[in-house]
Amino acid sequence: MVSKSEIKLITGLHQKKYRNRHGMFVAEGIKVITELYDAGMKLRELFTTEADRFSFAGSLVREISGDELKKVSQLKTPNKALALFEIPKEKEIRNSGLVLALDDIRDPGNLGTIIRLCDWFGIEDLVCSATTVDCYNGKVVQATMGSLARVNIVYTDLQAFIGESGLPVFIADMDGENVFETALPQKGILVMGNEANGISGEIRSLADGVVSIPRFGRIQETESLNVATATAILLSEFRRRGSSS
Amino acid sequence: MVSKSEIKLITGLHQKKYRNRHGMFVAEGIKVITELYDAGMKLRELFTTEADRFSFAGSLVREISGDELKKVSQLKTPNKALALFEIPKEKEIRNSGLVLALDDIRDPGNLGTIIRLCDWFGIEDLVCSATTVDCYNGKVVQATMGSLARVNIVYTDLQAFIGESGLPVFIADMDGENVFETALPQKGILVMGNEANGISGEIRSLADGVVSIPRFGRIQETESLNVATATAILLSEFRRRGSSS
Repeated sequence: MVSKSEIKLITGLHQKKYRNRHGMFVAEGIKVITELYDAGMKLRELFTTEADRFSFAGSLVREISGDELKKVSQLKTPNKALALFEIPKEKEIRNSGLVLALDDIRDPGNLGTIIRLCDWFGIEDLVCSATTVDCYNGKVVQATMGSLARVNIVYTDLQAFIGESGLPVFIADMDGENVFETALPQKGILVMGNEANGISGEIRSLADGVVSIPRFGRIQETESLNVATATAILLSEFRRRGSSS
Repeated sequence: MVSKSEIKLITGLHQKKYRNRHGMFVAEGIKVITELYDAGMKLRELFTTEADRFSFAGSLVREISGDELKKVSQLKTPNKALALFEIPKEKEIRNSGLVLALDDIRDPGNLGTIIRLCDWFGIEDLVCSATTVDCYNGKVVQATMGSLARVNIVYTDLQAFIGESGLPVFIADMDGENVFETALPQKGILVMGNEANGISGEIRSLADGVVSIPRFGRIQETESLNVATATAILLSEFRRRGSSS
């Protein structure tokens, strides 16, 4: 049984304003919920049509009907369970190696892919401009799986962060140096820019280097790689250099 | 004005069966249509609410109302124009360098990203198993933009193709050799596998090498990179080697 006030609370959490007010976010589906729990996210409540799949959650489990799940789910096809997790406190940025920074990334799918890439490539800190899409947005949560719990994601004034960091700053841009022929540091900040507009002028003026992924095909000069795809290639290249040196 | 029979034809083209029967596919939006046209796709008919944006299409342009566009569009928010293009004949596989092969890729977004990557990295031939999602699927078309016209995409019996090619075959898999430490040929076939199940047993038995992208983070061993992301990193690495040798 889900009460009216609970339905109001949960559907409210699909908006950032209410997530911040209540300090909670929503995750849906057995796999995502289990991964987030295993990775250390603090579970507050779990609504499910299959309670026996979540014995680990003990008294936090609430068995509900499929119709009730539909009322609170954001998915077209609700997937057996919906959980409320606590939004973790942002940790200090450790600056312990390569930091990835996002300048105004708007697409939840792109942010989700980038968070998974950070996890894969061992990037501990992901620093996002305040205008970047919220990482507790439902679509981001569904795309990141457990990686959301393992990467330290910080929203801040990116310009101020970069200015105060004292680290070398590389931005990714179409008119940069071929990344395969550029000296890359193992400690520094790599900045990826907005899907339509790239890196903002303020951040650009702080860059020590501009890197590009070379084009080998007949693709038009005006086209660019998707930002998540470009991030994959650049992080891979930074790590390859580090592991071979 | 769009007639009832035209509405039936166009909405039918959202299904593969009718695309093959009529030899046409649908593209939507000013940018996608213009790019496909500029890249050489043969336009059959163009329905738009803004005819003056498509002077290049001459007598193939049909001005329609926003309500009519809604009736034929597959998009939630129709974007001013819908075009019917001719499905091009598959060309011979040129085997002129690195061939990318897809073994049962099901997600249209992944295929769209991979087609763009082929275009970026100058992969001329993309060979897909018959079970791979159709590249003229609406979601694929919207994701590829003009790249769909520049990459030669062939659907075939992948096992037979590989067997007859005489080329070295590399498959991407979790338990392979570190790609950064593997000798890679500039002429050969790279095979990427299904989102859930990876490479099928039949294809696996034909492989000369198995390559993996090394993991640097704390991500769980059971997790994998998304197939489009992995393709980006592997194509980039093949091309980097080729350009530096």
